[in-house]
Amino acid sequence: MAAPSEEEGAVGPRCNHRSTAMLDVPFLPFCAFLGTLGLLCVAMVGTWCQHWRGGFSLDGSSRTFNWHPVLMVTGLVVLYGAAALVYRIPNTWSGPKLPWKVLHGSLALGAFVLTVLGLAAVFRFHNSQGTPNMYSLHSWMGLGTVLLFSCQWAAGFGAFLLPWAPAWLRALYKPIHVFFGSTILMLSVASCASGINEKLFFSLKNGTMEYKLLPAEAVFANTLGLLILIFGVLVVAALARPSWKRPDSDSPDSRQ
Amino acid sequence: MAAPSEEEGAVGPRCNHRSTAMLDVPFLPFCAFLGTLGLLCVAMVGTWCQHWRGGFSLDGSSRTFNWHPVLMVTGLVVLYGAAALVYRIPNTWSGPKLPWKVLHGSLALGAFVLTVLGLAAVFRFHNSQGTPNMYSLHSWMGLGTVLLFSCQWAAGFGAFLLPWAPAWLRALYKPIHVFFGSTILMLSVASCASGINEKLFFSLKNGTMEYKLLPAEAVFANTLGLLILIFGVLVVAALARPSWKRPDSDSPDSRQ
Repeated sequence: MAAPSEEEGAVGPRCNHRSTAMLDVPFLPFCAFLGTLGLLCVAMVGTWCQHWRGGFSLDGSSRTFNWHPVLMVTGLVVLYGAAALVYRIPNTWSGPKLPWKVLHGSLALGAFVLTVLGLAAVFRFHNSQGTPNMYSLHSWMGLGTVLLFSCQWAAGFGAFLLPWAPAWLRALYKPIHVFFGSTILMLSVASCASGINEKLFFSLKNGTMEYKLLPAEAVFANTLGLLILIFGVLVVAALARPSWKRPDSDSPDSRQ
Repeated sequence: MAAPSEEEGAVGPRCNHRSTAMLDVPFLPFCAFLGTLGLLCVAMVGTWCQHWRGGFSLDGSSRTFNWHPVLMVTGLVVLYGAAALVYRIPNTWSGPKLPWKVLHGSLALGAFVLTVLGLAAVFRFHNSQGTPNMYSLHSWMGLGTVLLFSCQWAAGFGAFLLPWAPAWLRALYKPIHVFFGSTILMLSVASCASGINEKLFFSLKNGTMEYKLLPAEAVFANTLGLLILIFGVLVVAALARPSWKRPDSDSPDSRQ
């Protein structure tokens, strides 16, 4: 590995600026792409359960289980991702913060409600079939993610929306809230991927439809799993991108 | 949600500084913790395969398969994580960059070699058992991750270690390399989690040892899965932490 001849000084600020500008993606078109991708994931998980897994019901059968993937993908991935991205919208950077806080908290609450309903669906299915709950790694990851999410929502509400949290506590908690915001989404998409994988092994068992023969359902649901992963990675990347953060994001969170 | 009475001015820089200082973790102790966690993951995946899954061989049996989880966790998660963190070591921030580049590239190459051997183990096992390859979501995610990793390594080598890459190309490619560095690790840990989940469903089938009865092996391997996820999340968080980045990290990559 030879050392190049050029010196560090050869890389001027103009070159850096031009190269960085080439990678600049405006937030709103990216966000529209993410929204489309998220809606595609919701449509695909619904189609999978409706077309291949028998549709939906509340009778405790496998059709009750089908609410589980739909609600988890919709709540814990797509709506959660939308909630996480609220403060990346440039309109939120000026003017009163409270309406945006309320929007962020409400979207996250909506995501949480769907998530809890999604958990209720799988517990009801297991209980009515006499299957134990909470034994697989998927269930451990998933429930751990939901527990983290509940702590995140409650702590965020207490620190940023209730009036009595002291400023030092908000400043201390804000980076923790931001860190767990991305972490929970990473764990969500990992849980979804392991859940789709597990469900396909459970469902595709008979001779002509075995998972390993890769029938149309398997291709469809595998593709759904990959799209969910791509959605999660892109949201986490958007959250981490410095130029999309509000300019005062390193200052303590202000009171409204 | 009442509006608090205090104004934004109540949150002074001193308060912010104190709160941020409370969260300051020095990099090296954190890194030692991560190293211990990574070694624990390697020890646990080895123990799982040795103690519960019959150990290791090269004969195409399930003992050949056992190399797969061990090599993937060791290569694509732990050694990969070590490679990714090289530029967060404060010693790398001054003096010649080339030795650190070589270390970063060598660790990543070591991780890649282990990963390819890990893939070879599962392909050999499938082929000798007459099982199709590449049908599950786990395999799609995993192979996608390895393909991304191979592109990442080759492009990083070409752009940063070979002498003839122009400065503008390095500056353009650097943020892409950094982005995919974290992305590949997230996909690796998600692949590991789905793989462990899948393997436990395959292996724990007979009446007294069913996965859903949560025998000791299931608790052990589920715990391993959670530790791998925690390791991945902490490495990605360490990579994203602004105060642990080299001070000139926003400047274009310099030539050595």
